[in-house]
Amino acid sequence: MTVNEVYEKVMTIKSINPLVKNVEYAVRGKLAIRAEELKQELEEGKEYPFSRVVNCNIGNPQQLNQQPIKFYRQVSSLCDNPDLLKKENYHLVSQLYPTDAIERAKKLMKSIGSVGSYSHSQGVPAIRQTVAQFIKERDGYPADPNHIFLTQGASSGVQTLLSLLTENSNSGIMIPIPQYPLYSASLALYGATPVPYYLNEATGWSLDVVQLTDVITKARKEGTDVRALVIINPGNPTGQCLTAKNMEEIVSFCYQQRIVLLADEVYQTNIYEPEERPFVSFKKALMDHPIPEVRESLELVSFHSISKGMIGECGRRGGYFECVNLDSQVLEQIYKMASVSLCPNVHGQILVDLMCNPPKPGDPSYESYKQEIESIYESLRRRSKKLEQVFNRMEGVTCQPAQGSMYLFPQITLPSKAVEKAKELDMAADAYYSLAMLEATGVCVIPGSGFGQKEGTWHFRSTFLPEEHLFDEFCSALEKFHKDFIEKHT
Amino acid sequence: MTVNEVYEKVMTIKSINPLVKNVEYAVRGKLAIRAEELKQELEEGKEYPFSRVVNCNIGNPQQLNQQPIKFYRQVSSLCDNPDLLKKENYHLVSQLYPTDAIERAKKLMKSIGSVGSYSHSQGVPAIRQTVAQFIKERDGYPADPNHIFLTQGASSGVQTLLSLLTENSNSGIMIPIPQYPLYSASLALYGATPVPYYLNEATGWSLDVVQLTDVITKARKEGTDVRALVIINPGNPTGQCLTAKNMEEIVSFCYQQRIVLLADEVYQTNIYEPEERPFVSFKKALMDHPIPEVRESLELVSFHSISKGMIGECGRRGGYFECVNLDSQVLEQIYKMASVSLCPNVHGQILVDLMCNPPKPGDPSYESYKQEIESIYESLRRRSKKLEQVFNRMEGVTCQPAQGSMYLFPQITLPSKAVEKAKELDMAADAYYSLAMLEATGVCVIPGSGFGQKEGTWHFRSTFLPEEHLFDEFCSALEKFHKDFIEKHT
Repeated sequence: MTVNEVYEKVMTIKSINPLVKNVEYAVRGKLAIRAEELKQELEEGKEYPFSRVVNCNIGNPQQLNQQPIKFYRQVSSLCDNPDLLKKENYHLVSQLYPTDAIERAKKLMKSIGSVGSYSHSQGVPAIRQTVAQFIKERDGYPADPNHIFLTQGASSGVQTLLSLLTENSNSGIMIPIPQYPLYSASLALYGATPVPYYLNEATGWSLDVVQLTDVITKARKEGTDVRALVIINPGNPTGQCLTAKNMEEIVSFCYQQRIVLLADEVYQTNIYEPEERPFVSFKKALMDHPIPEVRESLELVSFHSISKGMIGECGRRGGYFECVNLDSQVLEQIYKMASVSLCPNVHGQILVDLMCNPPKPGDPSYESYKQEIESIYESLRRRSKKLEQVFNRMEGVTCQPAQGSMYLFPQITLPSKAVEKAKELDMAADAYYSLAMLEATGVCVIPGSGFGQKEGTWHFRSTFLPEEHLFDEFCSALEKFHKDFIEKHT
Repeated sequence: MTVNEVYEKVMTIKSINPLVKNVEYAVRGKLAIRAEELKQELEEGKEYPFSRVVNCNIGNPQQLNQQPIKFYRQVSSLCDNPDLLKKENYHLVSQLYPTDAIERAKKLMKSIGSVGSYSHSQGVPAIRQTVAQFIKERDGYPADPNHIFLTQGASSGVQTLLSLLTENSNSGIMIPIPQYPLYSASLALYGATPVPYYLNEATGWSLDVVQLTDVITKARKEGTDVRALVIINPGNPTGQCLTAKNMEEIVSFCYQQRIVLLADEVYQTNIYEPEERPFVSFKKALMDHPIPEVRESLELVSFHSISKGMIGECGRRGGYFECVNLDSQVLEQIYKMASVSLCPNVHGQILVDLMCNPPKPGDPSYESYKQEIESIYESLRRRSKKLEQVFNRMEGVTCQPAQGSMYLFPQITLPSKAVEKAKELDMAADAYYSLAMLEATGVCVIPGSGFGQKEGTWHFRSTFLPEEHLFDEFCSALEKFHKDFIEKHT
């Protein structure tokens, strides 16, 4: 054979799929990579002004030592090792496991067969039944297991729907600004047109239907075929929780404009003002709508996940979406696409079952389950308030309270010297600020520019997930950093 | 609000992504759905000429009662329930678990933290180290953990690469015919051009480089930008295993033609003629290549999975791919895309670790592990031979032996009456035959038309995974069915 004179690679940044190149995803961007480096260097004994890296950049509770819910892990581990369910081991296993965990595992194994088998592409039928029952109890309206798809986390379900909605590059999807960057990243990947609408920071990141109407009208005038509205409720990165009244307006808007409603509801149990702002699902908002035609027509897809709430089982990649009023031929296409990926991982499916059907009063595990959930919940609420107060104490920083989710999204007024300095470095000003924060305090957040924000404003997103006993230390480091940063740049 | 006069759905079969509509995926198609119905009806007591449905349509060993490898499940369940690793439980747990499983779980937990945390997007670094070590021991050449990506099964990795390779609709990927339909389905989804090449049935589904050259030359003349060659080795659905000599030619061909080699090697341990046809990885074939420029230039991506082999942990969705000679900027793009999906599920990652580092001689679990693997292997080999003989005994049927993988792909000569009847029903003739087989015997296979085949020939794919004790019964039912079918249509 002859040797090529100069072997130029086939795959280069110039030759690969241009849509992939267009994808941006800030959550695991440069700052996260720098944070990993710092962690490594600290371990190796390098000196920094801080003793640990505090990951506030990603909603990954168990990475920050949030303990898993015991019952969930008990059932899942029994399913994983069916030898433990054999009669001859009962005398030992019953000393390690409560009886309801054993019973539940046996019941699940009956419908699953083996966690090592591909399941039905749409998810184990009995688990979809459990999800349907959960939705019914939550909303007071029935759900159809055949319209429920189990997924590997909410993200993969969102991507399935966004891909399906993209007929061509003119297909438009309304997304909030600020938004979780999965949406902009996926639209870039599928080559659809993002149609941004703005959440109103001054009124607690509320959603104004008048503005939605302006946005869709303008986009359609410009020729975009607007097809769907994405709502993240409770909000990511903004933490707001919509009122039922607002949701009815949104449902009416979608119906009138003939667009699909995609409701990202993964933070539905992360609700910190349950009296004033309880969570209402869009399924309920739709079924509560006074006009029958709306209830029977509006296409709604709602996403949920085992990664958030008090569960935080991110690493298992489990979730589901429910389709309401979708055309049956479209459901068939969704099923076909699920089949190409064979099935969602069965361990994730098991956790979806457990999330939707936790221990009930009277069950042996109920009291400890309840206590674990409440203790995580109360602690999260305290931490959200504490961090919000810290941010609001800082000069030039304003922070809306988190009504829900796991995030705060404070606005920072940056001195013009900082803005200029960032420009010189070809960085967004809030990325410059956040990097300085990381280098000074070890606290890793994500710049607002990764989520989108009103032109000329600067933000960052911070989780409030670090362990409570670390708060005093890193919060005072944050306050000191901010003061120094402002002084240095004034 | 006003009510829309006629509410036409937003998402209809006409309005959705046309690429999604183009996707075809036979493995879970009509026959599989009919098989599920039959199962249900049998359970409900309906009478059929058979007492059970025999799923030969999908490589899903544990669905057919193949037992999981104990050591793997032991380690995985300990990771799932870390309470079992606590000191106070040792006296009980040590009666249920061998010490090496406990030690391994502890070691894994140290690098993982919690199975509930998102891991590094590319996979837990320590597990990628294990994979690199496995590759090194298998091939005798080092592997770089930074060029290894853990995935949710091989399929998702294949899709990442195919998507990346699609610059536009003119980007061409060479795929074997017959092929596992993941490839054609994904190319349809990304809108790339499949460039089919044919495996030669008469010579045991061998791969002829002269033909490859003809195919690529013709495709390029027609203006297709051919960029990659897909090889499934051992073959799916065809079961062949390539010789080292043939692989060297293929490597040379890819280098000379400047195309990427995508090697689907998920069946690498399903080798039934280990003396004559041992498995050689394409990584080894590349590194063994006599010309240094080839070794240093050719872009190779190799895929592996925990779903096949003697492991068969399909439901966990785990796998990896190794990139060789890829441009660093391209690797960054792959990392970015992995990040958007957050991480592969951690339970799948754990199984990848265990697959790549099983118990070693001297370990407490070694003897039972070895015995389990060997017993599954020997039984698979026996079953492959048995079923091959059954097929070859049938009138007008010829079946190549399975050198590897989990499948046989017999050719059937169908009477013209059967072909006409199928045409009337708007079915492929082999789909008509396979459906008749299912209705008569309960045995579910996949028609060859789902994989592609030489014009005018008919095949079906059958796994040989059903339990050995069922073989006599369903094999004689198959023979009887075939005889009746031929008689009825002659």
